[in-house]
Amino acid sequence: MEQFIAMPELRKDPVTGRWVIIATERAKRPSQYTKTVEERRGGFCPFCPGNERTTPPEVLAYRPTSTQPDQEGWWLRVVPNKFPALISDGVLKRSARGMYDCMTGFGAHEVLIESPNHEQSYGDLPEEQITEIIWALRDRVVELRKLEGVRYILIFKNWQREAGASLEHPHTQIIALPIVPKRVQEELHGASKYYDHRERCVFCDMIQQELSDNLRIVAMNDTFICFLPFAGRFPFEMVLMPREHTAYFNDIQKKHVADLASITRQVFGLIREALDDPAYNFLVHAAPFNEAGAEPYYHWHIEIIPKLTKVAGFEWGTGFYINPTPPEAAAKFLQQVAARMANGGDANGKSARIASIH
Amino acid sequence: MEQFIAMPELRKDPVTGRWVIIATERAKRPSQYTKTVEERRGGFCPFCPGNERTTPPEVLAYRPTSTQPDQEGWWLRVVPNKFPALISDGVLKRSARGMYDCMTGFGAHEVLIESPNHEQSYGDLPEEQITEIIWALRDRVVELRKLEGVRYILIFKNWQREAGASLEHPHTQIIALPIVPKRVQEELHGASKYYDHRERCVFCDMIQQELSDNLRIVAMNDTFICFLPFAGRFPFEMVLMPREHTAYFNDIQKKHVADLASITRQVFGLIREALDDPAYNFLVHAAPFNEAGAEPYYHWHIEIIPKLTKVAGFEWGTGFYINPTPPEAAAKFLQQVAARMANGGDANGKSARIASIH
Repeated sequence: MEQFIAMPELRKDPVTGRWVIIATERAKRPSQYTKTVEERRGGFCPFCPGNERTTPPEVLAYRPTSTQPDQEGWWLRVVPNKFPALISDGVLKRSARGMYDCMTGFGAHEVLIESPNHEQSYGDLPEEQITEIIWALRDRVVELRKLEGVRYILIFKNWQREAGASLEHPHTQIIALPIVPKRVQEELHGASKYYDHRERCVFCDMIQQELSDNLRIVAMNDTFICFLPFAGRFPFEMVLMPREHTAYFNDIQKKHVADLASITRQVFGLIREALDDPAYNFLVHAAPFNEAGAEPYYHWHIEIIPKLTKVAGFEWGTGFYINPTPPEAAAKFLQQVAARMANGGDANGKSARIASIH
Repeated sequence: MEQFIAMPELRKDPVTGRWVIIATERAKRPSQYTKTVEERRGGFCPFCPGNERTTPPEVLAYRPTSTQPDQEGWWLRVVPNKFPALISDGVLKRSARGMYDCMTGFGAHEVLIESPNHEQSYGDLPEEQITEIIWALRDRVVELRKLEGVRYILIFKNWQREAGASLEHPHTQIIALPIVPKRVQEELHGASKYYDHRERCVFCDMIQQELSDNLRIVAMNDTFICFLPFAGRFPFEMVLMPREHTAYFNDIQKKHVADLASITRQVFGLIREALDDPAYNFLVHAAPFNEAGAEPYYHWHIEIIPKLTKVAGFEWGTGFYINPTPPEAAAKFLQQVAARMANGGDANGKSARIASIH
């Protein structure tokens, strides 16, 4: 029998209906929050080849058939998170505690190790490897949606400590949730209202508007477009979406996967170069699986949020953001850096870049 | 004539309806986001006595009648923010840019300098000074709501750089907005639905539940209660509210101001001692002024969010938070520290505290 794991708990805010995971498995003792106790890491990386036994057993790996699970030889691995926010053994149970509503923390939380390379990520991995990442993400979504009680699957990535990453080795996370998160519900609600009025997808309309304005586009190919949203909350916030209407990421056509890999590499290479390898968050938003009728109005997309500023109290308290950089100015800056990179990134690239702005 | 100020712009997200301020006055050039350019500050503080001329002219000050505006002698000052997110000269104008909605950045953004003391804040200022701060905040709310076009006034404080503060000298901010922010709308909506079902205020019910559970209370006096919300998003997140139902902060009774000052000092003193003076955000949520009928169901309160963990991509992408510390465990820890402080905070207090947890 496995070691006893305290089930994480979901709790609902009685005012706003927002759910929170109280994940005691990930708990720090209160004293660990004081500044005197800083987490320190040695040079050991559980995600590097040779250390497979230090992660939970793999649930998916791309590796030669001649190799064994949880041994070296893989070029991509997916393992359960060692400190999961949600766990899949157990049952989804709802309960009340006085006036408060709870739910058992049922779901799944997995980590996709992007490659054996400890250094390279979306911006510098070969396109072929990014293609493999996309396939693996799709494979896991297809698998996890079979779990009874799962209502939403979120793919996300925290790059660097300031963005919430706790391990250096490039990895992407997949979390299967028993609820549809509030922000996705808001998007569904807004997109549905827009559709009711106009019988058009609001995201498709945004793409048309961006193409016509041509002020905020960062990258584009036959299948995908990346731009800075008109009402972006954060400096250099970006959205990456398929140009053709599709509600589900996992419905991506095989012939489009290479285009997604290519624009991903391009955009993240540009972010690294233009903003000096900043921390960022990467999130895939798609329609929930059991949301009847979302297909005509919801359009899957990726949100990219470089972490360049501190989010202040004003933002937390209001959901109302102050963005000090107009998206048009940010787009122009990125376009200039992209042009310079295309003209051969010489060794003086960085100093040339900084000089040109002042 | 004053120097030309580019009007900040409000932009609306076409999907979710969320507004964002594009505050070009506060803009950094894109290059300033790169890590090589870190803001550095000298020893100069524009909020310290003697430097009154380096802030915009005061809009309110508590000072002896024998002293002149914008001169020394004050014990509390309110000045317009030098880099305002919103400005009050101009008119509120709505416009469309293609499919996108905009509004001029009309409003006000003020800074309350809490005292002449560069070091002391809510946790260590004398209670009498905190009382003065409360009166000054109320005075400004009463004044700012007269501005035509203002729909909401938010009082907030960012303590330390990690919470978004850009100046050290303790200060609280007041912002008058032409919209009701999304998070407040959500609270209004939820509280109103709750009231429709039960004809009771959800916040009043929470107070009853907290008193009966007695697991999450941090501090209490005759008029106010401070507890960790059952579904708190962040470790040690707290809420401080009047025990009696009131919708508006500025309706506070004179006899209750001292109780608010006292619990504020107590709670922030405890936070500083227990969590080693962490960064935090402080926010006052009250009903919007022109929201017809909000009085029976909305209950003003203060949110206190110590910044102990990084908010990760998962949270940004979903509005669904992972809190690694159960509020009950956090409350217990705080109660222990409070008890130790009450038993005489000797010089060894800190080491005794840390020893007792391990």
